[in-house]
Amino acid sequence: MTYENLDMSLVEKAGCGSESYDAGAIIFSVGDKGDRMYVLRSGLVDIERNGKVIHTVKPGGVFGEMALIDGSPRSATARAIEASELTAIRERAFLYLVHDTPYFALDLMRTLAERLRAMNELI
Amino acid sequence: MTYENLDMSLVEKAGCGSESYDAGAIIFSVGDKGDRMYVLRSGLVDIERNGKVIHTVKPGGVFGEMALIDGSPRSATARAIEASELTAIRERAFLYLVHDTPYFALDLMRTLAERLRAMNELI
Repeated sequence: MTYENLDMSLVEKAGCGSESYDAGAIIFSVGDKGDRMYVLRSGLVDIERNGKVIHTVKPGGVFGEMALIDGSPRSATARAIEASELTAIRERAFLYLVHDTPYFALDLMRTLAERLRAMNELI
Repeated sequence: MTYENLDMSLVEKAGCGSESYDAGAIIFSVGDKGDRMYVLRSGLVDIERNGKVIHTVKPGGVFGEMALIDGSPRSATARAIEASELTAIRERAFLYLVHDTPYFALDLMRTLAERLRAMNELI
């Protein structure tokens, strides 16, 4: 699932920003307080937990959404493994997108469900 | 997280139904095609995978939402461990609720995030 179909004019209207990271840079660390989720525009990002890569995000993919959904600290570390361009979606914009673009909510649920199924396979 | 605040008149307007199960009855089995999610009204339901209970649903809780979100077969078995009353939400009603009641989408995302965090802890 990707967010290529996410209307970026809506995202910009909702007040999102851009961030750039060099290869190797940490985007956030486990335990950090999170106030934004990310859409990866270009590059590649590893999601790590206990030094293990649990997921690699490709362009069009999202990560960091759990902090916005339930307000708890980052449960994993995100590291750019190539130079990466991100769109940051903060809480106000997130709520706006959930309320005004139901397919955004459905897409996000699909991402979460996909990750849950991947985890289920490990049990 | 529970769905006690879910407006049941909306759910009924959206065309949902009731189902009852005796203690011990299987609600669905892993691999089944799923066309509905459930809100547990009363009783207790175990979610099992490979003979292991991975989650116990209490009244107000939901389960079976993943089949609606991504259309894949049931990834776990649901068994009533007490006599249980359920509200079944089929796809049309589900889409209606996501579109017309954004807090339903957010609540559902919270449920998924909570389960993902629980799984993350196991890694």
